[in-house]
Amino acid sequence: MKSLLIKGNFISAPALGKLEILENGYLLTEDGVIKALFDKLPEQYSNIETDDYSGMLIMQSFCDMHLHAPQYPMLGMGMDLPLLEWLNTYTFKTEARFSDERYAREVYHALAQDLISRGTTRVVMFSSIHPKATLILMEELENAGVTGFVGKVNMDRNGGADLQETAVSSIRDTIYWLDECSRFKNVKPIITPRFTPSCSDGLMEELGKIASARGLNIQSHLSENLSEMEWVKSLRPDCSGYWQSYAKHGMWKDGTIMAHCVHCDDKELAAIKDAGVTVAHCADSNIDLCSGVAPVRKMLDMGIKVVLGSDIAGGAELSMTDVITKTIRASKIKRIESGWQTDFLSVAEAYYLGTTAAHLYFGDKPGFAPGNKLHAVVIDDSSLCTPRKLSLRERFERCLYISEKENIAAVYSNGVKCR
Amino acid sequence: MKSLLIKGNFISAPALGKLEILENGYLLTEDGVIKALFDKLPEQYSNIETDDYSGMLIMQSFCDMHLHAPQYPMLGMGMDLPLLEWLNTYTFKTEARFSDERYAREVYHALAQDLISRGTTRVVMFSSIHPKATLILMEELENAGVTGFVGKVNMDRNGGADLQETAVSSIRDTIYWLDECSRFKNVKPIITPRFTPSCSDGLMEELGKIASARGLNIQSHLSENLSEMEWVKSLRPDCSGYWQSYAKHGMWKDGTIMAHCVHCDDKELAAIKDAGVTVAHCADSNIDLCSGVAPVRKMLDMGIKVVLGSDIAGGAELSMTDVITKTIRASKIKRIESGWQTDFLSVAEAYYLGTTAAHLYFGDKPGFAPGNKLHAVVIDDSSLCTPRKLSLRERFERCLYISEKENIAAVYSNGVKCR
Repeated sequence: MKSLLIKGNFISAPALGKLEILENGYLLTEDGVIKALFDKLPEQYSNIETDDYSGMLIMQSFCDMHLHAPQYPMLGMGMDLPLLEWLNTYTFKTEARFSDERYAREVYHALAQDLISRGTTRVVMFSSIHPKATLILMEELENAGVTGFVGKVNMDRNGGADLQETAVSSIRDTIYWLDECSRFKNVKPIITPRFTPSCSDGLMEELGKIASARGLNIQSHLSENLSEMEWVKSLRPDCSGYWQSYAKHGMWKDGTIMAHCVHCDDKELAAIKDAGVTVAHCADSNIDLCSGVAPVRKMLDMGIKVVLGSDIAGGAELSMTDVITKTIRASKIKRIESGWQTDFLSVAEAYYLGTTAAHLYFGDKPGFAPGNKLHAVVIDDSSLCTPRKLSLRERFERCLYISEKENIAAVYSNGVKCR
Repeated sequence: MKSLLIKGNFISAPALGKLEILENGYLLTEDGVIKALFDKLPEQYSNIETDDYSGMLIMQSFCDMHLHAPQYPMLGMGMDLPLLEWLNTYTFKTEARFSDERYAREVYHALAQDLISRGTTRVVMFSSIHPKATLILMEELENAGVTGFVGKVNMDRNGGADLQETAVSSIRDTIYWLDECSRFKNVKPIITPRFTPSCSDGLMEELGKIASARGLNIQSHLSENLSEMEWVKSLRPDCSGYWQSYAKHGMWKDGTIMAHCVHCDDKELAAIKDAGVTVAHCADSNIDLCSGVAPVRKMLDMGIKVVLGSDIAGGAELSMTDVITKTIRASKIKRIESGWQTDFLSVAEAYYLGTTAAHLYFGDKPGFAPGNKLHAVVIDDSSLCTPRKLSLRERFERCLYISEKENIAAVYSNGVKCR
């Protein structure tokens, strides 16, 4: 058993809106698992190997709970188009390139490095339809130290000539991919129907059965954009709400994660709450594509589980500090719209959504709780100009708003130092 | 006379919404003044000294037309507070520290370096009330190569114990400061009443006279936030509109620059248009402080001159690429609010506002026009992952959305290479 002490200023989010701050403290791990936090080091630990980050901030690492890996090469492109045109003009063409395994290797290597170097240690991610490229993605993430769930995308309609499966080939490739996934330790598969317009009823039904038989989670998109919702209505006249196009096929349950949920009506929100479905809120993408701003405060008040996603490349920011501050800004738009009747998300709340809320999805306890594997990012903010000696809370806020990649001094993922 | 050729891919904004793109071109300068752009180099210039940026993008540099230099040390702090509380809790206390000249030197040196290294070569900037610190700021900007206008702030009411002048000391310090400014070549003074709540009618009157006698431009704030506007109404019952609290004292004219203008009514917008006043739109700040989103499309349709400002530290981004993309996002909020009836700002339009629109304020012609001193930023985007060979227009968009400080290969300001 290997013991390690980490020394510095610890900041974590034990609950929505709360910060736990430990100045000049110590965190003890054994084999990467958190054992205890100390404000004063007990005598018996004085000789243990120590990673000393005195003066720096040690925060919970970030979780990007919705992003499209094959869209990484088109980050920040085509931002003048709305969702459905953007998909056809840029996205589907870019994803089609991932039939080329060499290209997949190159892009996914860069993406995995970029994620870990920005302090994102857990993801819930879309790949493309390609099983081999998906395995390459999972391998690159695992090698870089990024953990979480990755899904081979299923789509047997409306993808265009170069990016479409049949229901049969989609299921065959899914089974092949799932069987191959057993070789990964920290990156696990998740069933991933792209969204209802991309999947026939029959394909949805088969995917629901696979998820159920193998005990797998499910990710997809829900109520992102008004045109998309109209389209779903016409494709699924049998469903009174968009969410039922998933629910009817056994995909509506605890562990299911739905991106966006910008325009859910009250019934859909209630269905989300009742089933324990998690919402991946993607503020930047929803504004970039003119979709709208999701009612996050309302969701939280209802007790819905909300986490954050960069949604690259609908979103143009891979850095979760940017995603967190953009989430705050989006919530301020809601406040402005409501004549200041709606509280915006505080810095502590948005940080909670980008960290603890998502770590819970993976089975952790809140904050730096004993029993969790260590997921942490160390930020050296000493190069930032200050007006006076700042409190740790103030430094924490600035790290979210203005720290850059170069300020990240170390990253721990799943108990291991990756950076 | 010194001739210099610059080689690379040129992108400029000759008019709102237009891009002029020259692939593998040459730009000829003489003593820093643009003489010509060539797609093929004429024989007679083949032996001239050349800065070769083949493959890179050479864009017009950025202008930050509203920012508060002494708030640089508090960038990204106190973002949970609305305008008036934020001013009293953080801002005024931070600004008060600039009575200390050593502190001013340290902060302003860092700010000037940070600006130029992000490609911002022209500014219209607020200092604090302190004349000596203001001179230090101007010196540091000039040394770094940042050009434009800087104003010593005037405020003889509502600043609190540590940050307030009397009308008499305010005018005395202003005259002292203006007389000292003659030593600067590229950084010029601008008259700067903080905003109506900070300036008595008498002080406003005197400042208007000084501006008129010395032929100086004026900058201030206008209709940023509803509480502020109510306050102005109660302070100036003699004015039917906020704008009149400036206009009544000779401050409403071509060359006047007013930050924010989020909540201007139609009369105020007409007054802005009629006088040729320039609006400094600060999208990030207006959202961070929950002020609102200014109606930029409406202003542009009316023919109002609009430029962009970071408004640090109400805004939390010093980088003008971030300010430009946040401006686009704010305009998308307007589109969403209007049920997609309002066009958002295209990438080309927002870039125009962050560059040409502001360069015009300084007397330039649009784009890389002959006769302009060269203001340019060179971006090396070769480290960015791509889906295929991109067009220059696509690369340009990505540079605005995702390039970072490290991608800036060179900066030219006022004809001189500064970086």
